[in-house]
Parts: sequence; structure tokens; C-alpha cells
Amino acid sequence: MKGHFIVIEGLEGAGKSTAVATVKAFLTNQNLSFKEVREPGGTPLAEALRELIKESWAERVTPQAELMVMYAARVQLVENLIKPALEQGLWVIGDRHDLSSQAYQGGGRELGSQLLAQIRQITLGDFRPDLTLYLDVDPALGLERAQGRGELDRIEKETLDFFQRTRQRYLELAASEPGVVTIDAGQPLDQVQAQIEKALQYYLQNQDKGRLA
Amino acid sequence: MKGHFIVIEGLEGAGKSTAVATVKAFLTNQNLSFKEVREPGGTPLAEALRELIKESWAERVTPQAELMVMYAARVQLVENLIKPALEQGLWVIGDRHDLSSQAYQGGGRELGSQLLAQIRQITLGDFRPDLTLYLDVDPALGLERAQGRGELDRIEKETLDFFQRTRQRYLELAASEPGVVTIDAGQPLDQVQAQIEKALQYYLQNQDKGRLA
Repeated sequence: MKGHFIVIEGLEGAGKSTAVATVKAFLTNQNLSFKEVREPGGTPLAEALRELIKESWAERVTPQAELMVMYAARVQLVENLIKPALEQGLWVIGDRHDLSSQAYQGGGRELGSQLLAQIRQITLGDFRPDLTLYLDVDPALGLERAQGRGELDRIEKETLDFFQRTRQRYLELAASEPGVVTIDAGQPLDQVQAQIEKALQYYLQNQDKGRLA
Repeated sequence: MKGHFIVIEGLEGAGKSTAVATVKAFLTNQNLSFKEVREPGGTPLAEALRELIKESWAERVTPQAELMVMYAARVQLVENLIKPALEQGLWVIGDRHDLSSQAYQGGGRELGSQLLAQIRQITLGDFRPDLTLYLDVDPALGLERAQGRGELDRIEKETLDFFQRTRQRYLELAASEPGVVTIDAGQPLDQVQAQIEKALQYYLQNQDKGRLA
């Protein structure tokens, strides 16, 4: 595929929205056309699934059902929007993607990495982002920031333990998956932005090399 | 688990509703308490997922997303309703269960039996119905009956080819999965009912033997 799929990942309150804005400004400066997407969501069916899974239910939402809904939404977005955009040569900026499920459902919900790897293979095959920027933040700090924004959804209301397991899995994945750059989101904002720009600059200069490697 | 999970399976127009009524009448005659469920659905979240997946969308619904939604709904139903009912010693009558996904998404949508076996293992583990009554009907006849009932949903609007692949997979599963009885749903109604009752009678008389085998 001719385009480029850049993903921003991290816990609630890590600064993903600001990071997406930084990526957009960078691509605009370079005269590169992009499309912005968020997960779960991005197509009519995927957005409907997003609402269902973020809602609080009187019944227990099982980890497996949560996982299935996340992947149902992801497949719709990837097949109906991301792949066609990449085929057109566009850049696609994703606010979350597959690493979120690996970390939240695999780590936070303790479904395990082997099960997650199977689901990823079944639904996405070998499709992967070209570059993932993982904003690493201490869960306590991230939650404080997220709470400051107002009403929390069902998943954001989880315990600190849950987010610590999620962060732990994010860090493991960032160390083992290709194409993931970890950025310390606890730094002052201008330093975070500078690191995002540096990672994008490096990707732009080395993309062909990277794709051949 | 102390209860009994009896499932009715088959294509659109195979006579599943009538079969469910026959099972209910049989259990009532035996003074056995039962709960009736349908798939996808049966819990608030599962019913919401049912609506989404039966709806017609402007976007293409990918086979993988359809599969994920079916299993999300199934896990909610099994964990939050079926297992607790079986623990209480109730009989549970299911209008469709896992075999539907194996046949429709595995066969009809051609996702394949290995992929389906993986998803079943991930979501349900070793949970299986105690008895499945598969109502086998020629797809052309079944569709004719279903069309006579009015408006068709997104899946019911599929091609005859799709339903032929689905039936083929049903027949293969009925031959290979334990606890599945095939009933020719093309016979006169009283003969179909007599065969359902015979299968239930046999199950009642041999259930302990069956569970030990």
C-alpha cells in the first residue's frame, strides 16, 4: 500500500489528542494529505459499536465480549476506510489501534497475549501500522487528567490496578513490536511535541529503507 | 452443571419456532422448569448487538466483524444467563447457538472451520449444548417460507448459494459434532414433531449415561 498509517497510543490522559494535533500540523507543514480516524469507531457500524461498549450496562460485560466488539469495530474501520485511504496514497492518523486491545483487553483484562495474537491474526492478518507513537504515562497521573475532563466511560472507570496492568503490557509491546516509538508523556508538553516531530522526521527520511527491511 | 441446554438449529424457514414450541410443550408435560433464549440476543447488550448486526448498513459488513458481533452476543448470553440457569438446575431451550456461527459465518461466509474452532475455543472454552436438534431443510423451500413471513433482515437477504454453503456446513457439523440429531424438516409437521419428541425422550432416558460417556 502506498500511504502511511501512523498511530498514537497510550492510556487515558496520556495526551493522545494533543499528539494527534502535533502529527496533523507536521503533515500539513510537509504538504502531505491525511485522514484522521479514532478507535473504536470511524464507520457507521463501528461508531454504533463504540457507543455500546463504552456504555455502562446493568449486566457484566465479559472481557471476551468487550474484545470481540473492539475487533468487530476495528475490522470495519480497517477494511472500509483505512485500507482504501492507504491505497489512495494518503497518510492515516489513528487515535488508538490494535495495540490498545493488546494492552487493555490482553493486559488490563488479563486475557493474555497468546489469545490476543490469535484474534489479531484472524481479523487483521498481517496488517500493521507503519509507525506507532506510544505515549507512556503513569496511570495515576493519566487518570487525574482524564477525570479533569469530566464524565468517565465504562472502561475509564476501571481501577488503578487495571491501568497498571494495561501500561505494563503497553511497555512490553513497545519493546517487542516493530515500529513502536515510546515517548515519555510525563515530560513538559514542548518536549513531548519535539519528540513526536523527531520520530516523524526520522520515519519520513527512512520509510523506504524501513519498508525494505 | 445440573441443568440441560437444548438447542434448535437450522436455516431460515426450517421451522425453528414451531420446534421450540414442541420442546416447551414436552418439558411442561414432564413438569420440568425451563428458560427460553434466542441468539443473537437474550441480554440487554446482546439484544443491542442483534439489532446492529441484522440491520442493513450503507457500508459493507465484513464477515469477520459479523463473526465478532455474533460471539460478543453469545458470550454475554452464555455467561450472564445460560450458565446461571443451568447452575440452578433449569432446562434452557436455545433458538440457535454456536452451530449457527459455524454454519453461517464458517460455511456461508466461507471463513473456514479452523478459524471458527479457534474463536469458539477463545470465547466459550469447552461449553457445549447437551442436545442439538438440527432441522434440515432445502434452502429454496426455507427461503420461500421465510419470505412469506414478511420483511427479511440483512442476513436473510443473502443469495441461495450462501444458504446452500450454510446447509452443507450444518450437515457436516451434524455428522461430526457430538450430541446433534438431524431431523428432516421437509416432512409433514406432525412427523417433525414426533421426531423432536422422540429425541427428547431418548435424551431424558439416557442423559446420565450420555454425560458419563
